[in-house]
Amino acid sequence: MMGYDLNRRLFAEALGTGILVAAVVGSGIMAETLTGDRALALLANTIPTGAILIVLITMLGPVSGAHFNPAVTLVFTLQGALAPGVALAYVAAQISGGLLGTGLAHTMFEMPLWTPSPTPRTGSGQWIAEAVASFGLIGAILGGLRLRPEVVPALVGLYITAAYWFTASTSFANPAVTLARALTDSFSGIRPADAPGFIVAQLIGATLAGAVFAWLYAPARRETA
Amino acid sequence: MMGYDLNRRLFAEALGTGILVAAVVGSGIMAETLTGDRALALLANTIPTGAILIVLITMLGPVSGAHFNPAVTLVFTLQGALAPGVALAYVAAQISGGLLGTGLAHTMFEMPLWTPSPTPRTGSGQWIAEAVASFGLIGAILGGLRLRPEVVPALVGLYITAAYWFTASTSFANPAVTLARALTDSFSGIRPADAPGFIVAQLIGATLAGAVFAWLYAPARRETA
Amino acid sequence: MMGYDLNRRLFAEALGTGILVAAVVGSGIMAETLTGDRALALLANTIPTGAILIVLITMLGPVSGAHFNPAVTLVFTLQGALAPGVALAYVAAQISGGLLGTGLAHTMFEMPLWTPSPTPRTGSGQWIAEAVASFGLIGAILGGLRLRPEVVPALVGLYITAAYWFTASTSFANPAVTLARALTDSFSGIRPADAPGFIVAQLIGATLAGAVFAWLYAPARRETA
Amino acid sequence: MMGYDLNRRLFAEALGTGILVAAVVGSGIMAETLTGDRALALLANTIPTGAILIVLITMLGPVSGAHFNPAVTLVFTLQGALAPGVALAYVAAQISGGLLGTGLAHTMFEMPLWTPSPTPRTGSGQWIAEAVASFGLIGAILGGLRLRPEVVPALVGLYITAAYWFTASTSFANPAVTLARALTDSFSGIRPADAPGFIVAQLIGATLAGAVFAWLYAPARRETA
Repeated sequence: MMGYDLNRRLFAEALGTGILVAAVVGSGIMAETLTGDRALALLANTIPTGAILIVLITMLGPVSGAHFNPAVTLVFTLQGALAPGVALAYVAAQISGGLLGTGLAHTMFEMPLWTPSPTPRTGSGQWIAEAVASFGLIGAILGGLRLRPEVVPALVGLYITAAYWFTASTSFANPAVTLARALTDSFSGIRPADAPGFIVAQLIGATLAGAVFAWLYAPARRETA
Repeated sequence: MMGYDLNRRLFAEALGTGILVAAVVGSGIMAETLTGDRALALLANTIPTGAILIVLITMLGPVSGAHFNPAVTLVFTLQGALAPGVALAYVAAQISGGLLGTGLAHTMFEMPLWTPSPTPRTGSGQWIAEAVASFGLIGAILGGLRLRPEVVPALVGLYITAAYWFTASTSFANPAVTLARALTDSFSGIRPADAPGFIVAQLIGATLAGAVFAWLYAPARRETA
Repeated sequence: MMGYDLNRRLFAEALGTGILVAAVVGSGIMAETLTGDRALALLANTIPTGAILIVLITMLGPVSGAHFNPAVTLVFTLQGALAPGVALAYVAAQISGGLLGTGLAHTMFEMPLWTPSPTPRTGSGQWIAEAVASFGLIGAILGGLRLRPEVVPALVGLYITAAYWFTASTSFANPAVTLARALTDSFSGIRPADAPGFIVAQLIGATLAGAVFAWLYAPARRETA
Repeated sequence: MMGYDLNRRLFAEALGTGILVAAVVGSGIMAETLTGDRALALLANTIPTGAILIVLITMLGPVSGAHFNPAVTLVFTLQGALAPGVALAYVAAQISGGLLGTGLAHTMFEMPLWTPSPTPRTGSGQWIAEAVASFGLIGAILGGLRLRPEVVPALVGLYITAAYWFTASTSFANPAVTLARALTDSFSGIRPADAPGFIVAQLIGATLAGAVFAWLYAPARRETA
């Protein structure tokens, strides 16, 4: 991924995060417009999110690494794979792209560009859920990169597909996406005041995963079964 | 894909577009026959569309390139990969195949061969949605071809799976399919008078994507992280 | 697939067809037990069918070719890939396996082993649908084998996933499965008197596909674009 | 998989089983919170389970073999691939991990850590279903390992996706997961008194599959078609 110049890498991070957010927010709007069943709406939010993640990471991974997520960028920076200055630029691109993604979804559905969400998402269960969601996401990425890099896009898409349902918070697992979702008054929104709690939990889960999976995947010692 | 003679390439374009349209229109008819829930109907329209795209592009890609879409043919022609005369023949095959696909779906469901759709789909939100849908589709194709050609069928299928939900227009993203869907009075239809607006938006989004992704994927310059 | 002796090949055909039928019939019973929405029931019938096809063809393809379907066996026999005597044994194994599959599904759900279905499925629309379903199935198999054999399991699973929805008959596309489904009084059943019409249509669609795709995939002549 | 020391292998078994159980139990809780339709709830339980299995087996397979299931460990031990002492440690890790997984799901949804399930699941149909479910699971694993090891994660995920619907018991197919599900008073629970019947049926189905598929995949003898 180091073959592309920084401009294109940042463009890829912003574009990918933007389309990801547009998919999350847009499919949520579409879903709640079409049905009153909340489980069906979440399914209609899950399938597009998993699918677009596979597409975006495949398309843009070779350009920028396809983080689209400050928690992922943090872990790679802590592991020395990214210079701190580049990491900051990545995060700025991700946050900007995410906010534009919310605006794009709203424009397509003829809603105001940005509106604060009234949906409360807070409490210890939700925070633990976000830490778990982020822990597993980092595990899937690090495990995939270590073992079969070509399947990382599918691992991330499938992981988030599962995590939308098994974590009580529906697995935001991404600080840039959390900020972008704070500005939509629709299915996928989160009250801006609740965003910091989610983001802290995400960074804790991701950092913990970075340490655990570095240990798990460290060069193996031989042993007989 | 240049190893096959033009007759077979045009047959593949017509066959592929025809089955694609039959899948879109037919699954829409089946869905609205079976349920009154609009989200469930769209899901029952989405899954077959994504699945058949993966099958058709895998099966027919080596024969014709599996465009099935004048917007895709336009982009490849602008990039010099297709002679203009061949491109026109491709588009004629796609449009003919698409219309036959609508007729085939209607025949299976014992409906008249072609009936104009009464469903209005118009306005700036819808047009922006079609431009976005087509922009992303071309990006997925060009990114896949540049980086991992064997996954292009899956990228297209998954992209459309997502775009059915996150674009306000449910992502037609294809002028030939738009014309074919103008002639079905069922779930997936579009009022004939609204087709031109969709097609113009699709061609704008696709052309823009051709330029943007040509820049993004241009031979990389080295840089240190 | 010729490395396995005939006993094991026939066992694989019977086992695969049996589990396939158990999946089709069993998921139909489960679905109609759990919901009154017919579209949701068909979705709950579609997803297991597509999934188990991918599993079974991957597992058993190297043993027997994983036909599980007399229409597929017919096409390979016409193309000279299978001796007529072996083909007859394959078909007998498929039909026996399919009937056992219905009995197994009924046993799990504590129903009588076999009961004729009262569900009418007949008429020109249904027959055309079965011919179309079988035509596409053979196309997916022949295209996959010609171009990327390792993806044939996924192509078949995805094709049937789509065809359950876009063909008016919900795509039986298999004479052995049709006979097995004639003996279940549940969601996936077909009235025994209607089975012959389906089977004739399937064999016509499959044979036609054998000819069309043999032409399409014949060794290519060079041409400039 | 023998390159990792036993500590890390046991950690991988516990982690994988824990996240698997958290996904099964958590998605069941989410589903029944959001909808009253039982088929939709089972679909919302199926999709995350299939998806997380693919992720976990890909991530952890190279470390421990990714059994996550005493029935799988039993079959590999009977085939001589695992020493009995290691097998016992694996089973202990799987059971411990599973119980922690239930507790984690409950913590995220702010429920008591463990509560016995009141849901009866018993009777000959259910037991046959568990034997069938486990038979097929072992077949998918052994077939995949013999023929295309890189697709084992997808085979297991897709097999369970299908088996959730076509087996009358919704396919627990795993003694450790059965014990863990005995301690949740939610959608995926099983009354503790009914767990032993399920476990015996699972071990019978798995052992039978070990024998059948060892025969089926034994080195092939040549034959002409």
